[in-house]
Amino acid sequence: MTLIDGKAVAEQIKKEIAEEVSRIVEAGGKRPHLAAILVGHDGGSETYVAAKVKACEVCGFKSSLIRFEDDVTEEELLAKVRELNNDDDVDGFIVQLPLPKHISEDKVIETIDYRKDVDGFHPINVGRMSIGLPCYISATPNGIVELLSRYNIETKGKKCVVLGRSNIVGKPMAALMMRKGYPGDCTVTVCHSRTANIAEECRQADIIIAALGSPEFVKADMVKEGAVIIDVGTTRVPSTKTKSGFKLTGDVKFDEVAPKCSFITPVPGGVGPMTIVSLMKNTLLAGKKEIYK
Amino acid sequence: MTLIDGKAVAEQIKKEIAEEVSRIVEAGGKRPHLAAILVGHDGGSETYVAAKVKACEVCGFKSSLIRFEDDVTEEELLAKVRELNNDDDVDGFIVQLPLPKHISEDKVIETIDYRKDVDGFHPINVGRMSIGLPCYISATPNGIVELLSRYNIETKGKKCVVLGRSNIVGKPMAALMMRKGYPGDCTVTVCHSRTANIAEECRQADIIIAALGSPEFVKADMVKEGAVIIDVGTTRVPSTKTKSGFKLTGDVKFDEVAPKCSFITPVPGGVGPMTIVSLMKNTLLAGKKEIYK
Repeated sequence: MTLIDGKAVAEQIKKEIAEEVSRIVEAGGKRPHLAAILVGHDGGSETYVAAKVKACEVCGFKSSLIRFEDDVTEEELLAKVRELNNDDDVDGFIVQLPLPKHISEDKVIETIDYRKDVDGFHPINVGRMSIGLPCYISATPNGIVELLSRYNIETKGKKCVVLGRSNIVGKPMAALMMRKGYPGDCTVTVCHSRTANIAEECRQADIIIAALGSPEFVKADMVKEGAVIIDVGTTRVPSTKTKSGFKLTGDVKFDEVAPKCSFITPVPGGVGPMTIVSLMKNTLLAGKKEIYK
Repeated sequence: MTLIDGKAVAEQIKKEIAEEVSRIVEAGGKRPHLAAILVGHDGGSETYVAAKVKACEVCGFKSSLIRFEDDVTEEELLAKVRELNNDDDVDGFIVQLPLPKHISEDKVIETIDYRKDVDGFHPINVGRMSIGLPCYISATPNGIVELLSRYNIETKGKKCVVLGRSNIVGKPMAALMMRKGYPGDCTVTVCHSRTANIAEECRQADIIIAALGSPEFVKADMVKEGAVIIDVGTTRVPSTKTKSGFKLTGDVKFDEVAPKCSFITPVPGGVGPMTIVSLMKNTLLAGKKEIYK
C-alpha cells in the first residue's frame, strides 16, 4: 500500500511555481497577482483565505485581501467584483464561499470575468471543461488529477466510482475522469444519496473518489483488494484526543480500508493541501495569460 | 413491452407549442423567430435544416434560412453570427454542424450570444446545465428526458448506463440523469471505447441510453429483463430492401432486445423526432424570454 502524500506533492509544486515566477520576474515579466474577497468572519473561511495568502507568498505571487463585513449589500460586492474585473494588475481573483444568505452566490460568480475566474466556478469554465476546451479547472478536482498523475496511477479503462454529485467536486471529478487521455479514460459511475446500493458499486471500483462529506462512510467491506482510494471528505468530528476538541475526519474508515488499497490519501495531508496548490497553478496560468488572452 | 412512440409524442408537443404561439400572438405578443445558418450542401445537413424549417411552420414560428457556400470564410460567418446576435427580431438561431474544416466550430459556437443559443452548445449553457441553473439544454438529451417523463418512467435510484461520451449526447445525458429531481436521481455510469467490459456494465442497467453510433451494438445478452432502452444511434447501413439503398439503423439490435424490455425506442421514430421538437421548445422559451431576459 502506498500512502499518497499530498502535502509533499503540494510543497514540491509550490517550489516549481516559485522557480517559474522567479524566472518570469527576472526576465522582466509581471509577477502574478491573486486577489481574494472575504465577506464576514466565518472561522473556516478565515483559515482558508489565510492559507491562500500564505501560499501566494511561498509561490512569489502578489496577493491582495479585500474584506467586507457580513452586512455588505449584494450591489456593493458586485461593484467590487467589476472593479477587479477591470483592474489590469489583478490576474485572477476569488470570492471566498459561502456568502451571507442575502447575497446570490450564482450572481456573484457569473459577474466575475471568466478570464480571471481562477476558482473555475464560472459557467463558462465549467462548460469548457465539460466540452474539453482549455479552461480554469476547479481546485479540488484539479488537485486530485494532479495526485493521480504524480503517482503514475493507471486510469485508462479503470472503473472509477465517484461518491457525491456536488458542483465543486463530484460532477467536475466525473467529467475529468471520463475525458480522453491521461488521467482519464475511466468508466465513471456517479453515486449519491439516491443510489440504491452504494456498497456494491464501490466493490466494483478500481478507483474510488469519496466526496460525500459523511465521516468514515467507506468501510473495508466496500473496497476491492488493490483499489485506489481518494478521500475528499474533511468533516470536523468532536474528539477528546486533540487540543482543539475536534478531529478532521475523511469519508473513508482509513485504518481498516488502507491495508486493502494499492494507493490511498490520508486525511489530513492528502487532497486538502492540493486544493490550494491548484488555485496557485491557475493563478500562474492567469498571470501568463495561458488559457485566455 | 411498451414501444416508445417518439413520433407521436413529437406531434403532440408541436401541437401544444402551436396552441401556445396562437395564444401569444392573439394577445399581441411576438411570434417566436428561429434563424438557421447552413453552410454548403451536405445531404444530411440539408435534410435536418429542411425538417427544422418545416417544424417551425407547424409550430407557428417565423423562420429564416441563411445560406453560405462551402468556401465562406470564417470571418464572414462570424460577421453573420454577430449580426443575428444583434437582430432584435431573431429570438434564437442555430448554425448547422458540421462546418467545413477551415472554420472553427468552437469559435463559431462561442461567438453566438448564449441568450440566443437554442442548440444549447455554448459553454455557458453547457456549464449552467451542469451546475443546475436554467439554460438551453441541447436537443437530443432534452428530447430523451421528455420521452422518459411523458411515459412516466421511474428514474429515482435506478442504474442508468450511458454508452458514449460525446459532447452532444453522452456527457449532457449523464449530467441530466444524475441531477436532483425527476427525471433524474439515477446512479449514472458512462461507458465508452475504453471501457473494459461494456456488456457487463449494460447487464446491470435499469436504463440504457445508447449513443455510440455503432449499429446493433447492444445485443439481447447485454440487457437485463425489464430494462428501459433508449436508442440514439442513427447509422445509415446499406440495404437492398429500401428504395434509397440504405436503412437507418440504431445502436440496439431491436428484434432480439425488444422482447426483454419494459420500454424501448425504435429507430427511426423514437429519439429522432424528439430532437427537432426540443429545438422548437427552446425557440419558444427564447421567444418568451423565459430563460434569459
